[in-house]
Amino acid sequence: MLITSLTNKQVKYACSLKEKKFRDLENKYLIEGEHLIEMANPSDIECLFTTDLEFKASYPVIYITQPILEKLSFTKNPQNKIAILKKKVQTLSYDKKHYLLLDNVSDPGNVGSIIRSALAFHIDYVVLSKNSVDIYNEKVIRGSQGAFIKVPIVYANLNEVILKLQENKIPVYASCLSNDTIDLKNIESTDSFALIVGNEGQGISKEIIDLADKSIKIEHSDAIDSLNVSVATAIMLYNLLKK
Amino acid sequence: MLITSLTNKQVKYACSLKEKKFRDLENKYLIEGEHLIEMANPSDIECLFTTDLEFKASYPVIYITQPILEKLSFTKNPQNKIAILKKKVQTLSYDKKHYLLLDNVSDPGNVGSIIRSALAFHIDYVVLSKNSVDIYNEKVIRGSQGAFIKVPIVYANLNEVILKLQENKIPVYASCLSNDTIDLKNIESTDSFALIVGNEGQGISKEIIDLADKSIKIEHSDAIDSLNVSVATAIMLYNLLKK
Repeated sequence: MLITSLTNKQVKYACSLKEKKFRDLENKYLIEGEHLIEMANPSDIECLFTTDLEFKASYPVIYITQPILEKLSFTKNPQNKIAILKKKVQTLSYDKKHYLLLDNVSDPGNVGSIIRSALAFHIDYVVLSKNSVDIYNEKVIRGSQGAFIKVPIVYANLNEVILKLQENKIPVYASCLSNDTIDLKNIESTDSFALIVGNEGQGISKEIIDLADKSIKIEHSDAIDSLNVSVATAIMLYNLLKK
Repeated sequence: MLITSLTNKQVKYACSLKEKKFRDLENKYLIEGEHLIEMANPSDIECLFTTDLEFKASYPVIYITQPILEKLSFTKNPQNKIAILKKKVQTLSYDKKHYLLLDNVSDPGNVGSIIRSALAFHIDYVVLSKNSVDIYNEKVIRGSQGAFIKVPIVYANLNEVILKLQENKIPVYASCLSNDTIDLKNIESTDSFALIVGNEGQGISKEIIDLADKSIKIEHSDAIDSLNVSVATAIMLYNLLKK
Protein backbone atom coordinates (compact mmCIF):
# COMPACT_ATOMS: atom_id res chain seq x y z
CA MET A 1 0.00 0.00 0.00
CA LEU A 2 1.34 3.46 -0.90
CA ILE A 3 -0.29 6.38 0.90
CA THR A 4 -0.10 9.70 -0.89
CA SER A 5 -2.66 11.78 1.03
CA LEU A 6 -1.62 13.90 3.98
CA THR A 7 -5.13 13.52 5.40
CA ASN A 8 -5.13 9.72 5.26
CA LYS A 9 -6.60 8.21 8.44
CA GLN A 10 -3.50 6.17 9.33
CA VAL A 11 -1.25 9.19 8.82
CA LYS A 12 -3.48 11.32 11.05
CA TYR A 13 -3.54 8.58 13.68
CA ALA A 14 0.26 8.33 13.70
CA CYS A 15 0.55 12.13 13.91
CA SER A 16 -1.75 12.23 16.93
CA LEU A 17 0.82 10.12 18.82
CA LYS A 18 3.16 13.10 18.85
CA GLU A 19 0.95 14.37 21.69
CA LYS A 20 1.17 12.92 25.19
CA LYS A 21 -2.60 12.79 25.68
CA PHE A 22 -3.03 10.49 22.66
CA ARG A 23 -0.02 8.36 23.61
CA ASP A 24 -1.61 7.90 27.05
CA LEU A 25 -5.00 7.11 25.55
CA GLU A 26 -3.75 4.65 22.94
CA ASN A 27 -0.77 3.19 24.85
CA LYS A 28 1.35 3.67 21.77
CA TYR A 29 4.18 5.95 20.70
CA LEU A 30 6.40 6.80 17.74
CA ILE A 31 10.06 6.11 17.11
CA GLU A 32 12.08 7.40 14.20
CA GLY A 33 15.16 6.11 12.45
CA GLU A 34 16.75 2.78 11.55
CA HIS A 35 18.93 2.63 14.68
CA LEU A 36 16.03 2.86 17.14
CA ILE A 37 13.77 0.60 15.09
CA GLU A 38 16.45 -2.09 15.02
CA MET A 39 16.71 -1.89 18.81
CA ALA A 40 12.97 -2.41 19.26
CA ASN A 41 11.41 -5.83 19.69
CA PRO A 42 9.66 -6.50 16.33
CA SER A 43 6.61 -7.82 18.18
CA ASP A 44 6.17 -4.38 19.78
CA ILE A 45 6.04 -2.67 16.38
CA GLU A 46 2.46 -2.13 15.29
CA CYS A 47 3.42 -0.78 11.88
CA LEU A 48 6.18 1.11 10.12
CA PHE A 49 5.94 4.02 7.69
CA THR A 50 8.68 4.38 5.10
CA THR A 51 9.45 6.03 1.78
CA ASP A 52 11.67 3.02 0.93
CA LEU A 53 9.42 0.99 -1.38
CA GLU A 54 11.79 -1.99 -1.21
CA PHE A 55 11.66 -2.32 2.58
CA LYS A 56 10.07 -5.49 3.97
CA ALA A 57 9.61 -6.67 7.56
CA SER A 58 7.79 -9.15 9.79
CA TYR A 59 5.35 -6.39 10.83
CA PRO A 60 3.04 -4.31 8.60
CA VAL A 61 4.89 -1.80 6.42
CA ILE A 62 3.07 1.24 5.04
CA TYR A 63 4.71 3.04 2.13
CA ILE A 64 4.43 6.82 2.13
CA THR A 65 5.56 9.83 0.12
CA GLN A 66 8.18 12.35 1.23
CA PRO A 67 5.62 15.03 2.28
CA ILE A 68 3.94 12.49 4.57
CA LEU A 69 7.30 11.49 6.02
CA GLU A 70 7.98 15.15 6.74
CA LYS A 71 4.60 15.47 8.44
CA LEU A 72 5.22 12.42 10.66
CA SER A 73 8.82 13.28 11.51
CA PHE A 74 10.03 15.20 14.56
CA THR A 75 13.06 16.60 12.75
CA LYS A 76 13.83 18.89 9.86
CA ASN A 77 15.79 16.15 8.11
CA PRO A 78 13.59 13.09 8.62
CA GLN A 79 15.01 9.60 8.51
CA ASN A 80 13.06 7.40 6.16
CA LYS A 81 11.50 5.06 8.74
CA ILE A 82 9.00 5.91 11.47
CA ALA A 83 7.24 3.23 13.50
CA ILE A 84 4.27 3.02 15.85
CA LEU A 85 5.15 0.96 18.92
CA LYS A 86 2.98 -0.49 21.66
CA LYS A 87 4.01 0.65 25.13
CA LYS A 88 5.38 -2.16 27.26
CA VAL A 89 3.64 -2.86 30.54
CA GLN A 90 6.38 -3.06 33.15
CA THR A 91 5.86 -4.30 36.69
CA LEU A 92 8.22 -3.17 39.41
CA SER A 93 9.76 -5.98 41.44
CA TYR A 94 11.93 -5.62 44.52
CA ASP A 95 14.28 -8.56 44.03
CA LYS A 96 16.84 -6.66 41.94
CA LYS A 97 20.02 -4.87 42.99
CA HIS A 98 20.05 -1.42 41.43
CA TYR A 99 17.23 1.11 41.29
CA LEU A 100 17.22 4.68 40.07
CA LEU A 101 14.34 6.94 41.18
CA LEU A 102 13.60 10.27 39.46
CA ASP A 103 11.59 12.78 41.49
CA ASN A 104 9.98 15.27 39.12
CA VAL A 105 12.87 15.43 36.66
CA SER A 106 11.34 17.54 33.95
CA ASP A 107 13.78 18.17 31.10
CA PRO A 108 13.37 15.48 28.42
CA GLY A 109 17.01 15.76 27.31
CA ASN A 110 18.18 15.15 30.87
CA VAL A 111 15.85 12.17 31.33
CA GLY A 112 17.03 10.68 28.01
CA SER A 113 20.67 11.05 29.06
CA ILE A 114 19.90 9.58 32.52
CA ILE A 115 18.24 6.51 30.97
CA ARG A 116 21.28 6.02 28.71
CA SER A 117 23.57 6.11 31.78
CA ALA A 118 21.18 3.81 33.68
CA LEU A 119 21.57 1.17 30.97
CA ALA A 120 25.35 1.69 30.89
CA PHE A 121 25.63 1.24 34.66
CA HIS A 122 23.44 -1.82 35.15
CA ILE A 123 20.36 -0.21 36.65
CA ASP A 124 17.56 -2.81 36.88
CA TYR A 125 14.67 -0.35 37.15
CA VAL A 126 14.20 3.34 36.51
CA VAL A 127 11.23 4.60 38.54
CA LEU A 128 9.77 8.03 37.75
CA SER A 129 7.43 10.03 39.96
CA LYS A 130 4.15 10.62 38.22
CA ASN A 131 4.89 14.35 37.69
CA SER A 132 8.14 13.59 35.83
CA VAL A 133 8.43 14.02 32.07
CA ASP A 134 6.76 11.48 29.71
CA ILE A 135 9.43 8.96 28.67
CA TYR A 136 7.69 8.56 25.29
CA ASN A 137 8.44 12.21 24.50
CA GLU A 138 10.60 12.15 21.38
CA LYS A 139 13.39 14.14 23.06
CA VAL A 140 13.65 11.52 25.79
CA ILE A 141 13.75 8.75 23.20
CA ARG A 142 16.40 10.54 21.14
CA GLY A 143 18.46 11.53 24.19
CA SER A 144 18.46 7.96 25.50
CA GLN A 145 19.84 6.70 22.17
CA GLY A 146 17.38 3.85 22.35
CA ALA A 147 18.38 2.84 25.89
CA PHE A 148 14.78 3.44 27.00
CA ILE A 149 13.82 0.34 24.99
CA LYS A 150 16.17 -1.85 27.04
CA VAL A 151 15.82 -0.57 30.61
CA PRO A 152 12.63 -1.41 32.53
CA ILE A 153 10.97 1.92 33.35
CA VAL A 154 7.88 2.49 35.51
CA TYR A 155 5.92 5.45 36.85
CA ALA A 156 5.02 5.07 40.53
CA ASN A 157 4.44 6.83 43.82
CA LEU A 158 8.01 7.23 45.07
CA ASN A 159 7.03 7.27 48.76
CA GLU A 160 5.55 3.80 48.44
CA VAL A 161 8.46 2.53 46.37
CA ILE A 162 11.03 3.77 48.91
CA LEU A 163 9.22 2.03 51.78
CA LYS A 164 9.12 -1.24 49.85
CA LEU A 165 12.80 -0.97 48.88
CA GLN A 166 13.65 -0.48 52.55
CA GLU A 167 11.51 -3.50 53.54
CA ASN A 168 13.67 -5.42 51.08
CA LYS A 169 16.87 -4.17 52.78
CA ILE A 170 17.92 -2.04 49.82
CA PRO A 171 19.64 1.14 51.05
CA VAL A 172 18.07 4.27 49.59
CA TYR A 173 20.31 7.27 48.85
CA ALA A 174 19.04 10.75 48.00
CA SER A 175 21.26 13.02 45.90
CA CYS A 176 21.05 16.38 47.61
CA LEU A 177 23.04 19.50 48.43
CA SER A 178 22.07 20.26 52.03
CA ASN A 179 24.64 20.40 54.81
CA ASP A 180 24.09 17.05 56.50
CA THR A 181 24.84 15.04 53.38
CA ILE A 182 27.64 12.51 53.05
CA ASP A 183 30.31 12.97 50.40
CA LEU A 184 29.92 10.34 47.67
CA LYS A 185 33.58 9.38 48.27
CA ASN A 186 32.73 8.29 51.81
CA ILE A 187 29.73 6.10 51.02
CA GLU A 188 30.46 2.51 52.02
CA SER A 189 30.17 -0.23 49.47
CA THR A 190 26.87 -2.11 49.34
CA ASP A 191 25.73 -4.98 47.18
CA SER A 192 22.53 -3.19 46.21
CA PHE A 193 21.24 0.38 46.29
CA ALA A 194 18.53 2.75 45.16
CA LEU A 195 19.54 6.27 44.14
CA ILE A 196 17.04 9.14 44.05
CA VAL A 197 17.71 12.27 41.96
CA GLY A 198 15.50 15.32 41.79
CA ASN A 199 14.13 18.18 39.76
CA GLU A 200 16.57 20.46 37.88
CA GLY A 201 15.65 23.55 39.87
CA GLN A 202 14.19 22.36 43.17
CA GLY A 203 16.00 19.06 43.73
CA ILE A 204 14.23 16.21 45.53
CA SER A 205 11.12 17.10 47.54
CA LYS A 206 11.68 17.31 51.29
CA GLU A 207 9.24 14.51 52.02
CA ILE A 208 11.25 12.12 49.81
CA ILE A 209 14.62 13.22 51.24
CA ASP A 210 13.31 12.52 54.74
CA LEU A 211 12.35 8.97 53.73
CA ALA A 212 15.79 8.14 52.30
CA ASP A 213 18.38 6.33 54.43
CA LYS A 214 21.19 8.72 53.53
CA SER A 215 21.68 11.92 51.59
CA ILE A 216 24.77 12.04 49.41
CA LYS A 217 26.49 14.75 47.42
CA ILE A 218 29.29 15.20 44.92
CA GLU A 219 31.95 17.60 46.11
CA HIS A 220 32.63 20.35 43.57
CA SER A 221 33.95 23.88 43.27
CA ASP A 222 31.96 26.68 44.92
CA ALA A 223 32.18 28.59 41.64
CA ILE A 224 29.09 26.76 40.45
CA ASP A 225 25.72 26.22 42.15
CA SER A 226 25.18 22.64 41.08
CA LEU A 227 26.01 20.02 38.50
CA ASN A 228 23.64 19.17 35.67
CA VAL A 229 21.30 16.43 36.97
CA SER A 230 22.20 13.94 34.24
CA VAL A 231 25.91 14.48 34.89
CA ALA A 232 25.47 14.15 38.66
CA THR A 233 23.40 10.98 38.24
CA ALA A 234 26.04 9.36 36.04
CA ILE A 235 28.88 10.21 38.44
CA MET A 236 26.90 8.76 41.35
CA LEU A 237 25.93 5.57 39.53
CA TYR A 238 29.48 4.95 38.32
CA ASN A 239 30.97 5.51 41.74
CA LEU A 240 28.32 3.60 43.70
CA LEU A 241 28.72 0.62 41.38
CA LYS A 242 32.45 0.47 41.05
CA LYS A 243 33.08 -0.22 44.72
CA MET B 1 17.00 56.32 25.20
CA LEU B 2 13.96 54.23 24.27
CA ILE B 3 14.17 52.41 20.95
CA THR B 4 10.84 51.53 19.37
CA SER B 5 11.88 50.64 15.81
CA LEU B 6 12.69 47.07 14.86
CA THR B 7 14.99 48.39 12.14
CA ASN B 8 17.02 50.60 14.47
CA LYS B 9 20.77 50.34 13.74
CA GLN B 10 21.72 49.16 17.23
CA VAL B 11 18.99 46.53 17.22
CA LYS B 12 20.15 45.25 13.86
CA TYR B 13 23.76 45.21 15.04
CA ALA B 14 22.83 43.19 18.15
CA CYS B 15 20.78 40.78 16.03
CA SER B 16 23.71 40.17 13.70
CA LEU B 17 25.64 38.75 16.67
CA LYS B 18 23.33 35.75 16.66
CA GLU B 19 25.45 34.56 13.73
CA LYS B 20 28.92 33.11 14.22
CA LYS B 21 30.44 35.01 11.30
CA PHE B 22 29.50 38.37 12.84
CA ARG B 23 30.60 37.29 16.31
CA ASP B 24 33.98 36.34 14.82
CA LEU B 25 34.22 39.60 12.91
CA GLU B 26 33.22 41.86 15.78
CA ASN B 27 34.70 39.83 18.68
CA LYS B 28 31.44 40.27 20.52
CA TYR B 29 28.52 38.06 21.52
CA LEU B 30 25.10 38.13 23.19
CA ILE B 31 23.98 36.84 26.56
CA GLU B 32 20.41 36.77 27.81
CA GLY B 33 18.92 36.83 31.27
CA GLU B 34 19.67 38.33 34.67
CA HIS B 35 21.56 35.29 35.97
CA LEU B 36 24.15 35.29 33.17
CA ILE B 37 24.47 39.06 33.12
CA GLU B 38 25.19 39.09 36.86
CA MET B 39 27.95 36.52 36.33
CA ALA B 40 29.64 38.66 33.66
CA ASN B 41 32.34 41.18 34.47
CA PRO B 42 30.62 44.59 34.05
CA SER B 43 33.66 45.90 32.19
CA ASP B 44 33.06 43.25 29.49
CA ILE B 45 29.51 44.46 28.90
CA GLU B 46 29.36 46.82 25.96
CA CYS B 47 25.69 47.62 26.44
CA LEU B 48 22.47 46.09 27.71
CA PHE B 49 19.00 46.08 26.14
CA THR B 50 16.02 45.92 28.48
CA THR B 51 12.29 46.59 28.61
CA ASP B 52 12.71 47.55 32.29
CA LEU B 53 12.70 51.36 32.14
CA GLU B 54 13.85 51.59 35.78
CA PHE B 55 17.02 49.52 35.27
CA LYS B 56 20.34 51.35 35.75
CA ALA B 57 23.91 50.07 35.52
CA SER B 58 27.55 51.12 35.26
CA TYR B 59 27.50 50.31 31.52
CA PRO B 60 25.24 51.82 28.80
CA VAL B 61 21.60 50.71 29.08
CA ILE B 62 19.32 50.87 26.04
CA TYR B 63 15.59 50.73 26.68
CA ILE B 64 13.53 48.78 24.17
CA THR B 65 9.95 47.68 23.53
CA GLN B 66 8.65 44.11 23.86
CA PRO B 67 8.68 43.41 20.08
CA ILE B 68 12.37 44.36 19.94
CA LEU B 69 13.11 42.16 22.93
CA GLU B 70 11.43 39.29 21.11
CA LYS B 71 13.50 39.98 18.02
CA LEU B 72 16.76 39.98 20.00
CA SER B 73 15.93 36.95 22.13
CA PHE B 74 16.88 33.34 21.42
CA THR B 75 13.83 31.98 23.20
CA LYS B 76 10.07 32.03 22.88
CA ASN B 77 9.70 33.54 26.35
CA PRO B 78 12.45 36.15 26.42
CA GLN B 79 13.95 37.36 29.65
CA ASN B 80 13.91 41.11 29.87
CA LYS B 81 17.67 41.73 29.66
CA ILE B 82 20.01 41.00 26.77
CA ALA B 83 23.61 42.25 26.70
CA ILE B 84 26.37 42.59 24.16
CA LEU B 85 29.67 41.38 25.59
CA LYS B 86 33.23 41.75 24.35
CA LYS B 87 34.99 38.41 23.90
CA LYS B 88 37.84 37.91 26.35
CA VAL B 89 41.27 37.29 24.91
CA GLN B 90 42.63 34.25 26.74
CA THR B 91 46.23 33.08 26.53
CA LEU B 92 47.03 29.46 27.25
CA SER B 93 49.76 28.93 29.83
CA TYR B 94 51.33 25.62 30.81
CA ASP B 95 51.94 26.24 34.51
CA LYS B 96 48.53 25.01 35.68
CA LYS B 97 47.44 21.59 36.89
CA HIS B 98 44.27 20.58 35.04
CA TYR B 99 43.53 20.85 31.34
CA LEU B 100 40.57 19.61 29.34
CA LEU B 101 40.99 19.29 25.56
CA LEU B 102 37.99 18.91 23.22
CA ASP B 103 38.72 17.39 19.82
CA ASN B 104 35.93 18.36 17.42
CA VAL B 105 33.11 18.15 19.96
CA SER B 106 30.24 19.48 17.92
CA ASP B 107 26.98 19.49 19.87
CA PRO B 108 26.54 22.87 21.61
CA GLY B 109 24.49 21.33 24.45
CA ASN B 110 27.27 18.85 25.17
CA VAL B 111 29.95 21.54 25.10
CA GLY B 112 27.89 23.72 27.46
CA SER B 113 27.48 20.83 29.88
CA ILE B 114 31.19 19.97 29.64
CA ILE B 115 32.19 23.56 30.47
CA ARG B 116 29.85 23.51 33.48
CA SER B 117 31.54 20.29 34.71
CA ALA B 118 34.98 21.75 33.95
CA LEU B 119 34.25 24.66 36.30
CA ALA B 120 32.82 22.28 38.92
CA PHE B 121 35.93 20.09 38.82
CA HIS B 122 38.66 22.72 38.93
CA ILE B 123 39.79 22.65 35.30
CA ASP B 124 42.22 25.53 34.70
CA TYR B 125 41.87 25.63 30.90
CA VAL B 126 39.42 24.23 28.38
CA VAL B 127 41.14 23.96 24.99
CA LEU B 128 39.00 23.35 21.90
CA SER B 129 40.25 22.20 18.51
CA LYS B 130 39.48 24.79 15.87
CA ASN B 131 36.77 22.62 14.26
CA SER B 132 34.84 22.35 17.54
CA VAL B 133 31.60 24.24 18.10
CA ASP B 134 31.66 28.01 18.72
CA ILE B 135 31.51 28.56 22.49
CA TYR B 136 29.62 31.82 21.92
CA ASN B 137 26.74 29.85 20.40
CA GLU B 138 23.72 30.58 22.62
CA LYS B 139 23.14 26.87 23.32
CA VAL B 140 26.66 26.52 24.67
CA ILE B 141 26.17 29.59 26.84
CA ARG B 142 22.82 28.36 28.13
CA GLY B 143 24.04 24.77 28.65
CA SER B 144 27.06 25.96 30.62
CA GLN B 145 24.80 27.92 32.99
CA GLY B 146 27.24 30.78 32.79
CA ALA B 147 30.28 28.63 33.62
CA PHE B 148 31.82 29.63 30.30
CA ILE B 149 32.29 33.14 31.75
CA LYS B 150 34.44 31.78 34.59
CA VAL B 151 36.58 29.08 32.95
CA PRO B 152 39.45 30.18 30.70
CA ILE B 153 38.68 28.77 27.24
CA VAL B 154 40.91 28.87 24.16
CA TYR B 155 40.85 27.51 20.61
CA ALA B 156 44.16 25.97 19.57
CA ASN B 157 45.91 23.32 17.52
CA LEU B 158 45.63 20.32 19.85
CA ASN B 159 48.76 18.60 18.48
CA GLU B 160 50.89 21.57 19.49
CA VAL B 161 49.16 21.90 22.86
CA ILE B 162 49.72 18.22 23.69
CA LEU B 163 53.44 18.44 22.90
CA LYS B 164 53.80 21.51 25.12
CA LEU B 165 51.86 19.87 27.96
CA GLN B 166 54.20 16.89 27.74
CA GLU B 167 57.26 19.19 27.76
CA ASN B 168 55.83 20.54 30.99
CA LYS B 169 55.54 16.99 32.46
CA ILE B 170 51.75 17.02 32.44
CA PRO B 171 50.42 13.52 31.64
CA VAL B 172 47.97 13.54 28.75
CA TYR B 173 45.06 11.07 28.78
CA ALA B 174 42.81 10.36 25.80
CA SER B 175 39.27 9.13 26.48
CA CYS B 176 38.77 6.33 24.00
CA LEU B 177 37.08 2.97 23.50
CA SER B 178 39.73 0.88 21.71
CA ASN B 179 41.10 -2.32 23.19
CA ASP B 180 44.44 -1.17 24.54
CA THR B 181 42.91 1.43 26.85
CA ILE B 182 43.30 1.45 30.61
CA ASP B 183 40.23 1.31 32.83
CA LEU B 184 39.69 4.66 34.56
CA LYS B 185 39.65 2.77 37.88
CA ASN B 186 43.26 1.71 37.33
CA ILE B 187 44.74 5.10 36.47
CA GLU B 188 47.32 6.09 39.03
CA SER B 189 46.96 9.34 40.89
CA THR B 190 48.86 12.31 39.50
CA ASP B 191 49.13 15.86 40.73
CA SER B 192 48.28 17.27 37.30
CA PHE B 193 46.70 15.96 34.09
CA ALA B 194 45.25 16.85 30.73
CA LEU B 195 42.19 14.93 29.53
CA ILE B 196 41.21 14.79 25.84
CA VAL B 197 37.64 13.94 24.80
CA GLY B 198 36.40 13.60 21.25
CA ASN B 199 33.61 14.01 18.77
CA GLU B 200 30.17 12.50 19.57
CA GLY B 201 30.26 10.08 16.65
CA GLN B 202 33.90 9.57 15.74
CA GLY B 203 35.68 10.03 19.05
CA ILE B 204 39.17 11.53 19.13
CA SER B 205 41.11 11.57 15.85
CA LYS B 206 43.76 8.84 15.56
CA GLU B 207 46.59 11.34 15.27
CA ILE B 208 45.64 12.88 18.62
CA ILE B 209 45.18 9.49 20.35
CA ASP B 210 48.67 8.50 19.21
CA LEU B 211 50.16 11.63 20.78
CA ALA B 212 48.54 11.02 24.18
CA ASP B 213 50.48 9.28 26.95
CA LYS B 214 47.65 6.91 27.84
CA SER B 215 44.19 6.03 26.57
CA ILE B 216 41.55 5.55 29.24
CA LYS B 217 37.98 4.28 29.24
CA ILE B 218 35.00 3.98 31.53
CA GLU B 219 33.82 0.42 31.95
CA HIS B 220 30.10 0.05 31.19
CA SER B 221 27.51 -2.48 30.09
CA ASP B 222 27.78 -3.93 26.60
CA ALA B 223 24.10 -3.12 26.12
CA ILE B 224 25.09 0.38 25.03
CA ASP B 225 27.66 1.54 22.46
CA SER B 226 28.98 4.49 24.40
CA LEU B 227 28.23 7.06 27.07
CA ASN B 228 27.18 10.59 26.19
CA VAL B 229 30.39 12.64 25.84
CA SER B 230 29.42 15.20 28.50
CA VAL B 231 28.57 12.41 30.93
CA ALA B 232 31.82 10.53 30.20
CA THR B 233 33.86 13.73 30.59
CA ALA B 234 32.31 14.50 33.98
CA ILE B 235 32.90 10.95 35.29
CA MET B 236 36.53 11.11 34.17
CA LEU B 237 37.19 14.53 35.65
CA TYR B 238 35.58 13.61 38.97
CA ASN B 239 37.51 10.38 39.25
CA LEU B 240 40.86 11.74 38.04
CA LEU B 241 40.61 14.59 40.53
CA LYS B 242 39.41 12.79 43.58
CA LYS B 243 42.47 10.60 43.91
